[in-house]
Amino acid sequence: MGDSLKTRVRWVEDHRFVATTGSGFSLVLDNPHRDGGAAASPMELVLVSLAGCTGVDVVAILDKMRQPLERFEVEVEGSRADEHPRVYTVLDVVYRAWGDIDPSKLLRAVELSEGKYCSVSEMLRPTSKINIRVELNGEPVMAQRE
Amino acid sequence: MGDSLKTRVRWVEDHRFVATTGSGFSLVLDNPHRDGGAAASPMELVLVSLAGCTGVDVVAILDKMRQPLERFEVEVEGSRADEHPRVYTVLDVVYRAWGDIDPSKLLRAVELSEGKYCSVSEMLRPTSKINIRVELNGEPVMAQRE
Repeated sequence: MGDSLKTRVRWVEDHRFVATTGSGFSLVLDNPHRDGGAAASPMELVLVSLAGCTGVDVVAILDKMRQPLERFEVEVEGSRADEHPRVYTVLDVVYRAWGDIDPSKLLRAVELSEGKYCSVSEMLRPTSKINIRVELNGEPVMAQRE
Repeated sequence: MGDSLKTRVRWVEDHRFVATTGSGFSLVLDNPHRDGGAAASPMELVLVSLAGCTGVDVVAILDKMRQPLERFEVEVEGSRADEHPRVYTVLDVVYRAWGDIDPSKLLRAVELSEGKYCSVSEMLRPTSKINIRVELNGEPVMAQRE
C-alpha cells in the first residue's frame, strides 16, 4: 500500500464546515446558494480537485519537456444527474495554455495526465463521461474526444 | 439533465493554482509537501469534498429529525495505490456527533447519506472501499461495515 492522506471537517453552523487537511491547511466549505453561504460547496470542490490534479500534471510534464509555459488554466464543467445521488454524469475539461509551446507536446502532457497520472480523473471516470478540449494560445489543438 | 457546476483553476507558479468556482468563491491549491507549498493539495480536496458532502447531509437530516446536534465532525483517511494513477483504494470515514441525540437516528442519517444522497461517496465507491464508523458523545454506535 502507498501512503495515506487525512482530513477532518468540523461543522460550524447551517451548511458551513471548516476543513483541516493532514498537511495543516484549512479551508471553509459551505452551500454558496443558501442565505449567507460563504464558500465553495463540496461538489464544487470535486471540480477543483479534478482541475488541480490534472493541471499540476500538465505543468510538471511540460516543465520536464522544457516547454516555456507562460500562462495556463483548466476549466471544468460538471453536469449532474437529476436524481439522488446527484453525481456528475458528464465532465467537460478544457485546458488552456499560452506560450511558445509545441502543440504535440501539450497534447502528450494532457494525455499522460488523463491516461496515467491523474488520480482524480481515474476515480471519477466510472461515473462520469470525461470530455477533453485543449487550446494553445487561443486556438484549439485537438477535437473533442471521449 | 440536472444543473451543471463550473470551476476554473489558474496556474500561479510551481504547483500552485488559484481556483474560482462558479459560485464566485476562490481558493488556493498547492503541493503542501514542496518547498513553499502553501495550501491543500488536489488529492486532499477529494477528502474534503467527501467529508463535506456527507457531513452536510447528516447535519441537514438530523435537523429535519429535530435532533439537537451540538457538535459534529467528519474525519476521512484515504489510502492510496502504490502505482499511478494513485487513486484512493480505501476510504475510512468517521462521523463524530455530540448532543442529546437518538443513536438510531444518527445511524439512519449516516445511512441515508451514504446510500442515497451523497454524490461524492457514490462517485468514489467504484474505486474505493468506503469504511464507515459512527461515534456519539465519544462512544461508538456502529461497528465498522463495508
